[in-house]
Amino acid sequence: MKGKFISVEGIEGAGKSTQIQFIKSYLENFNKSVIVTREPGGTPLGEEIRELLLRPRKDGMSDNTELLLMFAARAEHIKQVILPALAAGKWVVCDRFVDATFAYQGGGRGIHEQRISSLSDWTLDGLKTDLTLLFDLPVQIGQQRVNQRLLEKDRFEQEKTDFFEKIRQCYLDRAVNEPERIQIIDASQSIDNIQQQVSISLNKLLQSV
Amino acid sequence: MKGKFISVEGIEGAGKSTQIQFIKSYLENFNKSVIVTREPGGTPLGEEIRELLLRPRKDGMSDNTELLLMFAARAEHIKQVILPALAAGKWVVCDRFVDATFAYQGGGRGIHEQRISSLSDWTLDGLKTDLTLLFDLPVQIGQQRVNQRLLEKDRFEQEKTDFFEKIRQCYLDRAVNEPERIQIIDASQSIDNIQQQVSISLNKLLQSV
Repeated sequence: MKGKFISVEGIEGAGKSTQIQFIKSYLENFNKSVIVTREPGGTPLGEEIRELLLRPRKDGMSDNTELLLMFAARAEHIKQVILPALAAGKWVVCDRFVDATFAYQGGGRGIHEQRISSLSDWTLDGLKTDLTLLFDLPVQIGQQRVNQRLLEKDRFEQEKTDFFEKIRQCYLDRAVNEPERIQIIDASQSIDNIQQQVSISLNKLLQSV
Repeated sequence: MKGKFISVEGIEGAGKSTQIQFIKSYLENFNKSVIVTREPGGTPLGEEIRELLLRPRKDGMSDNTELLLMFAARAEHIKQVILPALAAGKWVVCDRFVDATFAYQGGGRGIHEQRISSLSDWTLDGLKTDLTLLFDLPVQIGQQRVNQRLLEKDRFEQEKTDFFEKIRQCYLDRAVNEPERIQIIDASQSIDNIQQQVSISLNKLLQSV
């Protein structure tokens, strides 16, 4: 039986990493074989592309290039990891997928949605997530959390608040347009409450199998 | 006045590098300001993408990824180098451009022409070379020349003869379909004869200005 494809989305500091571990354990309790992966990345080549995308650079990177690199990494990820895992009946939990591209390169960078759709159709060839969990919270709270980590900021994390406001809005708009696929989780709540909301969404998906 | 855009194409061992130096000097004798650049590459980021594309890798690279990486490097090259140079009235001489993508990823890898056109239209936004010089020669002669260099072969050079036969054919088909833009130069001739053919094509372009 074919596996299910779940993506986890949200702005910086939304707590995705913690939730992904919870999702994995939760599904494994239902005897699902789960792989956790991420974008950009998820393959050796994809991780090299990720490094190109995240490393701050003085010479800049054009928006078109950033978008094409995202899809280059994604094409490899789909071919080498996602499709084989789903075909083998595994559940794939992916830290960001194509909704992030619409949010970051569309909402954030301002590339027209139609231009992103065109590359998305080209690359995904009909692949869709069965469930996308959008961890939503006010940008300021997300940024406070990121700042507390005290790590060196990558090329995206260095962007200003306004950039993340546009990303958040684009994510929310997408969830409104596809309420079945994209579930909004209020990530400003306590971890217990968040996990309860996540469980409800996962239960629905588990029952649909 | 806007500059002119010339690309130089051909399979491995066609002698492009030697001819590019000749083209540069020839145009400079007509008081043109010339920049020589190359694809994949031509920008700091593009050269990093080139390295990803050329380095042999055990884990492979899917055809879609290869194609998207080519266009990612090209998008940066167009934005940072080619368009600004042309706008400043410079003549741009580029070692490979989009015809190479149709030849290598289309003819060689077998990606459908329509799928390449779709990315090409997306990325190039109407940009075309004013002249493309296709240095054509039998694959075997090209490969003998490459082998004599005794360098470590890159991911493309490691391909078999059949791969380059398909590339050569695709290049020739493109030249037949666009005879005004793409000039076939018989690269198996003596250097003097080749340079004479090249000069004729360049003279036409110089007179058209």
